[in-house]
Order: sequence, then C-alpha cells, then structure tokens
Amino acid sequence: MSKPTIKVLAKELGLAVSTVSKALRDSHEISQDTKDKVLKLAAQLNYIPNPYASSLRRQKSRTIAVVIPEVADSFFSIAINGIEEVAREKGYHVLIYLTHESLERETEILNEFKSGRVDGLLISVTRDTCSGTHITEAIEAGLPVVFFDRMCEDIKAARVLTDDYESSYQATRLLIERGCKKPAYLSISPNLSINQKREAGYLAAVNEAGIETSQARIISCDGPDDKITEQILILLRQPNRPDGIIASVEKLVPPVYFACKELGINIPEEIRLIGFTNLTASPILNPSLSTVTQPAFEIGKTAAALLFKGIEKTSFDLSREKLIIPSQLQLRDSTL
Amino acid sequence: MSKPTIKVLAKELGLAVSTVSKALRDSHEISQDTKDKVLKLAAQLNYIPNPYASSLRRQKSRTIAVVIPEVADSFFSIAINGIEEVAREKGYHVLIYLTHESLERETEILNEFKSGRVDGLLISVTRDTCSGTHITEAIEAGLPVVFFDRMCEDIKAARVLTDDYESSYQATRLLIERGCKKPAYLSISPNLSINQKREAGYLAAVNEAGIETSQARIISCDGPDDKITEQILILLRQPNRPDGIIASVEKLVPPVYFACKELGINIPEEIRLIGFTNLTASPILNPSLSTVTQPAFEIGKTAAALLFKGIEKTSFDLSREKLIIPSQLQLRDSTL
Repeated sequence: MSKPTIKVLAKELGLAVSTVSKALRDSHEISQDTKDKVLKLAAQLNYIPNPYASSLRRQKSRTIAVVIPEVADSFFSIAINGIEEVAREKGYHVLIYLTHESLERETEILNEFKSGRVDGLLISVTRDTCSGTHITEAIEAGLPVVFFDRMCEDIKAARVLTDDYESSYQATRLLIERGCKKPAYLSISPNLSINQKREAGYLAAVNEAGIETSQARIISCDGPDDKITEQILILLRQPNRPDGIIASVEKLVPPVYFACKELGINIPEEIRLIGFTNLTASPILNPSLSTVTQPAFEIGKTAAALLFKGIEKTSFDLSREKLIIPSQLQLRDSTL
Repeated sequence: MSKPTIKVLAKELGLAVSTVSKALRDSHEISQDTKDKVLKLAAQLNYIPNPYASSLRRQKSRTIAVVIPEVADSFFSIAINGIEEVAREKGYHVLIYLTHESLERETEILNEFKSGRVDGLLISVTRDTCSGTHITEAIEAGLPVVFFDRMCEDIKAARVLTDDYESSYQATRLLIERGCKKPAYLSISPNLSINQKREAGYLAAVNEAGIETSQARIISCDGPDDKITEQILILLRQPNRPDGIIASVEKLVPPVYFACKELGINIPEEIRLIGFTNLTASPILNPSLSTVTQPAFEIGKTAAALLFKGIEKTSFDLSREKLIIPSQLQLRDSTL
C-alpha cells in the first residue's frame, strides 16, 4: 500500500480533505466525534503528517515566508519592514520570495514549502494567481496563510487590506471638485481584485458627478517603464485628452510625469494628477504629488501579527479574519 | 569521541582548516598528496561533510541566498532583479534576507545556512560585518560566496563592485567646476569600505582643487529620515554653510531636498546637489537630480553569474574573482 496521505484518509472516511486537515489540527470547527475517527484511522494507517501541518510538527522552522510580486515598489518595501518588526519580536526569520507576476513561479515557491521550510505565509498575489489552486492546497494542508494587499476573493483565507474602493472614490471626487471634467483611470493589472475595487470607486465618483464614462479613459498599461510612457503619450495626444489622472499604482507615476514633460502639458494647470504611492519623494517631485498613501507599515505589521496568532493558536480560525486599514489622501501641488 | 569536524581533521593532520576544506572540495590549489591524506583520515574518522560543502552534497537545494541590509533602496531592488534573471535561467530559487544593518541578524542568517538551505550566497554586508567571523567561516566550510556593492576588504572572497572612488571623484570635480568652493560630503555608514572609497574620491578632488578640507563638511548622518533631515538642517544653518553637496547614498537625497525647502535655499542657485542613486524619480524631482547612477542590474547579474560558476565548477577558484563595473554620472538641473 502506498504512503497514506490526507487525501487517502479523507476518501476512506468519506470526509472532505479540509475536514480531515482541520481534525488533525484539532480545529474547533470539527466535532470531537469526527476528530476521534480521523485520529484512529491516521494511527491505523501509520499516517505521517505533512511537515507543515503546524500543530503536529515536532520541529518548527521558525521562519515565515513573504511572497510578493516585486520589491521595486515602496508599498512592498515598507510593508516588509512592518512584517520584519513583528517577526523579530517573535524570534522568527523572514524569507522574501519574488514572483515577478508569474503564476508559475508562485506555484513553484508554494510547492517548495511542502518540505516544511516555513511555518506560515504572507502573500500578495500575482495578477494570475486566482486561477490557480496552489494557495487553497497549501491552506488545506495546514499552512497558515494571510493575504495582504493583493488577494483572491474566492479563497477563504485571512486578509489585511486597505479601503481601495473608498480611497479611489475620494481621490476621483477630489479631481472632480477641483474642476476635472474628464478624469482618466490608469491601472496595470486589471484582473486584480484591488484594481477592480479602485476602478469601481473611480466609476462611482464619475457617475455620481454626472460625467459620461468613457472606456477611452480607463486605461490598462503594461510592460516596462518606457512602454508605459508610450501608452500614456498615446492617451495624452488624443484631441479629447483627459484633464485629470488617477495613477492607481506607483509604477505609473514617473511615466505620467515623463509623458506630460515631453508634451509640454502642465501639471496641475492642464492636467491634475493623483497617485497611489508611498514614495518618500512625492513631496519633492515637480510639482509635488498628491497621493493616496497606503498604511503600508501597518498592513505589514497587522498581517504578520495575525499570521503568528494563526501559527501559535490552533484553536484560532485564521481564515475568518478580515481587517481593513484605511488609506490617507495627501494633497499637494499636483491637484491644486 | 565526539563527531569529527573539519577542525578535528585539520588539527590531527597539522593543516589549516581552509586547506582541509579545499582538499575535501578537490580544489586545484591543493596537492594530490595532501588531498589523499585528508580523504584517508576523513574516511577513518567517519567524517560527515557539512551539508553545504557543495561538491560533496548529494542533494542540492537549488536555492541561492541574497543577504542585504534593506530593500527600500533602488540599488538593491534593481540588483535583485539582475540576480533573479540569472537564477531563473539556471532554474534556481532566490531567497532574500534582510539584515537591517544588524551584524547579529546577519550572523544568525548565515548560521541557518549550515543546514544546507542554500547552495551559494550573494551578500552586501552590514556596516559592522567586517568585525565578525561568520562570513569567513561560511567560506571555509565550502559555501560559495560573492560580495556585491558592500564588502569586507580583508575577506578573501569574490566581489563585484562599482568604481566608488572614481565616480565620487568625478562628481566632486563636477561641483567644483560648476563653481562650488565649499562642497560637503554626506554619508550614512562611515566604516563601510564603499563609503571610505567615496570619501577618498571626494577628498582627492577637493585637495586637487586647492580647497581647504574641513571636517565640518564631512558629515555622517544616522537614524530615521526625519533625524537625518534635522542633521542636514544643522549643517545648512551654519553661517559658513556648504555650497555643494555629495549625497553618497540614496537615503540622504529626500532629506537634503526637505531641508533646503524648509530653509528656502535654492538648488542649484545657492547649493548644488549630486546624489548616488538609481531612483526612477530623479529626472522628475524639483529640481531634477544629477546622479551617480550605479550599474545595479549589471552588478546583480554579474555577481549571480559568478556565483553560479563557483557552484558549478569546483575547480574554479571563486575567491580570486574581482570585477568592477563603472557607474555613470547623469547631469540634470541640480548641478546647473
């Protein structure tokens, strides 16, 4: 007979894999009766638990993983500092893995965790993650997981987010209040749930103001910085060009400035600009940039604290946790 | 008898630890005679090689580690992209560890590698690393190591650097040519060899121009951003304040702008500024920033390629490799 897995136990007992997994972790969601059945069969079949089913592990790695798309973004570099502050207090190491927006790499990285390399995972997903099953599998196998910033709506896991809809709505309202009649919304990864919320916030404010929405003003950019600048140049060369821009990710900010400079379009006189960014340099840009500033450090810290609660307390149902920490609008010269 | 270590073998044979280590790795530097002696005793004592003595390891981790002080610096975030490009081609994973300038953390991280977690190490050291022995021990135990950017002069290991002396000399010359009579040099970690080279380049240009050097214009800043801004405010409030600034690390750039803005000192009319940075935002700062732009991506790529050569070829003496890739001076409005 082959080595018994959690799937074999589940099939044998006619239970869901997740139920067996929770029973093995002594979860409060599972009845004592079911737990007894699972443990009895596990003993009979000499089931060896997967090394990252935390409560059963003998030796913890004392390491958590942070899986993110990139580090060249001030949100992530600040969030990592928040995560590390908590990990240091707990005496844990932090491993940072970059996916570069590749679902394949992300899947490989999570597969590696099966060897018990880490005790928990903080993840901000790639633009394609939500079509995969690797995160659900990791959770079902007992790995504590917390999403931060970018997450999959359909996966039942803890999440620490900011108020993407609300802050985008407020940013768009501000542009309209200052006089913009044709604000445009720029994004990079249209499928991400955080982008969908930001876009919805933009649309709500535009509709509320009675401005006709136009697909020509909702632009998804792609590629390296110079390609993005080209796409923005095309937008700004239109005869009916926008008079306001919401740059929904930091990466879009320099290309907007570059394109405006090249075309001699003055910010804020001819086009108002607001960017979602935690750039330290925002106040010293020319002109200084109004921003939606995300609580990056707090998000990192809170997500890590939640993860450790999940690692330490098996009776705590991590997957139900959902925390939202609001962003702040910081007004500077680009929206005068 | 206790478990034999490489040190026991060395003592027993009257050889240096590094000689035994190299003999076990079949290094070309060691005579066949010595290798035979070492291998014979190793067999007699049932010596179990440390899991990261690469040529002896049965199962490679196919993972390399990047150990750096922080990610909130565009040099490191770009260098990581260069490293990951090479690692991806080789089918390796990259783990990123942050030391936050703590020698203790760096030592802990390297200790963790003793379990064979990684096949090689790319490291940019903390400001206190060179007083420690952890890197030398890792190298002696057979871990392939390449320094990039920040390194220890006294440790015999491969290094990939930029021309810190030369680029700082050129940057200072430029300020003097543009009319500065009192250029100041700002740093953060005075003990780092890269800083010493940059400071020496500054001093050479100042001396060459017959400008009296003053310790009051060589400033080492410390602490978080607001503390650094305060230190720069003190410098700029002096009656005999500098008329030019070399900001030798990126972290110093925003505080210099903030301090000048607060005091109403115009850049470049009243003070010229040049910064060592790879910030994408340099051209859109107010005024745009002249920079010493380091070949961050190339340094990362080259260091990783060298490391893989060291991992793959045991006959290759990695420790002798030293590569220097020049930085570029990019002139913008802050030095007009």
